[in-house]
Amino acid sequence: MIEPVAVALGDPAGIGAEITAKAYAERQVRGLPCFFAVGSRRALETSWHGPVETITAPSQAREVCDHALPLIEVEHREEIIPGEPTLEGARCALDALEFATGLVRSGAAGALVTAPISKAQLIAIGFTHPGQTEFVAERCGVASQNVAMMLLGPTLKCVPVTMHTSIASVPELLTVDLIVGRITATARGLMKNFGIEHPRIAVAGLNPHAGESGLMGVEEENIIRPAMEMLAHEDFTLVGPLPADTMFHPRARAKYDAAVCMYHDQALIPVKTLHFDEGVNLTLGLPIVRTSPDHGTAFDIAGKNLARPDAMVAALQVAADCAERRMRAREECH
Amino acid sequence: MIEPVAVALGDPAGIGAEITAKAYAERQVRGLPCFFAVGSRRALETSWHGPVETITAPSQAREVCDHALPLIEVEHREEIIPGEPTLEGARCALDALEFATGLVRSGAAGALVTAPISKAQLIAIGFTHPGQTEFVAERCGVASQNVAMMLLGPTLKCVPVTMHTSIASVPELLTVDLIVGRITATARGLMKNFGIEHPRIAVAGLNPHAGESGLMGVEEENIIRPAMEMLAHEDFTLVGPLPADTMFHPRARAKYDAAVCMYHDQALIPVKTLHFDEGVNLTLGLPIVRTSPDHGTAFDIAGKNLARPDAMVAALQVAADCAERRMRAREECH
Repeated sequence: MIEPVAVALGDPAGIGAEITAKAYAERQVRGLPCFFAVGSRRALETSWHGPVETITAPSQAREVCDHALPLIEVEHREEIIPGEPTLEGARCALDALEFATGLVRSGAAGALVTAPISKAQLIAIGFTHPGQTEFVAERCGVASQNVAMMLLGPTLKCVPVTMHTSIASVPELLTVDLIVGRITATARGLMKNFGIEHPRIAVAGLNPHAGESGLMGVEEENIIRPAMEMLAHEDFTLVGPLPADTMFHPRARAKYDAAVCMYHDQALIPVKTLHFDEGVNLTLGLPIVRTSPDHGTAFDIAGKNLARPDAMVAALQVAADCAERRMRAREECH
Repeated sequence: MIEPVAVALGDPAGIGAEITAKAYAERQVRGLPCFFAVGSRRALETSWHGPVETITAPSQAREVCDHALPLIEVEHREEIIPGEPTLEGARCALDALEFATGLVRSGAAGALVTAPISKAQLIAIGFTHPGQTEFVAERCGVASQNVAMMLLGPTLKCVPVTMHTSIASVPELLTVDLIVGRITATARGLMKNFGIEHPRIAVAGLNPHAGESGLMGVEEENIIRPAMEMLAHEDFTLVGPLPADTMFHPRARAKYDAAVCMYHDQALIPVKTLHFDEGVNLTLGLPIVRTSPDHGTAFDIAGKNLARPDAMVAALQVAADCAERRMRAREECH
């Protein structure tokens, strides 16, 4: 059995604590692994009236988690006003992230799940990473260009090649090297986290109809296809570049294990159209398992008891499944 | 009751005749309007063994359509090899399109449904329009920039602002005027074809997170928002620019009647992910009702009895519904 899963609670003014507590409340019916929160006690108490019990080490979570939500407390003295992020709150979120990451790195916790943070507030306290993913990568000693995000729901896994960048900048950012790296990370990620021996990967084109032989764009022929050709002899199967509009319906999805997409919305539109409430972000390329619910801090509904825990539940399930599988694979190697 | 609907059979080497015949076979269980085919008898007989009866005027379709698929025949002497388009086949497809359009323009037929054609073959015989839509627009005396395509399924209607153009060219093609034109066409189209008095229209941003206040692209602030502001006092409601990835899940879709999207795949990914087998293309801005099944000639499966008629069935249903509604509205005006 894997060690308890660490959940970094994210921004105290957002919905992180609420969805973590709600996921805890549903732990039995949803078959969740034993997990503990890392973060602000105030944030939990603001959004939930159930039992919270402070622990000081992940191993204590096992005894606690049957009767109370185990919490490794991070100092946070300020009054919380839901929906109103502060610098103090950002510091608390960052402390929690750092502490939880360390626990997973050390092996004391089995996997890392991160609730949403406020990027604007983190920047204001001097955080220099584009997001939590890059921070975790650095703490794990992995260069951020070697990690990739997989967005997944029950019937679809997508890995975007480019992410938080304007549409105008996407064509110039796409290179053979970058696409080769993302496809490779996707294949290794499917093997390692999902136990798929010979992954089948669908690669989207950039343009309508995947360019229609150059009539509507040249990136398919000049960049995507050459990248795919470089990987022709690997232990995974590639199809594409495919027209993006016809690759996400049920019969199309049945033909591949993951889709590599060229830009943010090409990956996120299908995942969120199909699996809005249960989308999970899984970081590929790390020595640890890290997932997060695929939504933001939702400051607009924070403190109103309106947040759905489904994505946090799914993030916990995916994290536990991937960690189990990696553990078994390690055991088989020894 | 509307006049019989005209179906132009499209390329004889494609699946047009097959899906039209299969739709005819399902006409009762699917509640289809009385319709007739315009095109090649050979194409119908190649793909179907049911009864076909030649008529010479749409009005004769009513007596025929209970016992045979009524056909207005277009000359086509060549042997058909399914999947292998020819110049002669393209001429036949174009004759059928022209004849069917004329019948609907004259009022003898109630609406126009067009099966897919082969653009490459049409270009080879001197066809100068980008597609059937522009041809029909011209025959109706409407400038092609004043028509818009609506892609629709049972739970989603999308209108793309730009269409068959590379992703790299999208940002420079977006202008305030073009977006104003497409939003207006969408609103009028919803009123006229679907009887929605005060349409609610969601407008997508171009960039991830709709640019996140300029952090990931400026088109939302510089082009899309100004276009929306110009329409603030019209008799329809606009929301946006919205992040495209979170606007197509079921609860989001419930809040608008149609989405205006900035590029092909932004509109087509959600429609085809949700409604692959039943996607319909409805041309907005024409004096007549024109729909088509939202797929191509499918030369790869032509002649194999594998084509699904669902999109043709949906195109016939949408065409009949829209034509009925327009007819009733005209009657109420008199």
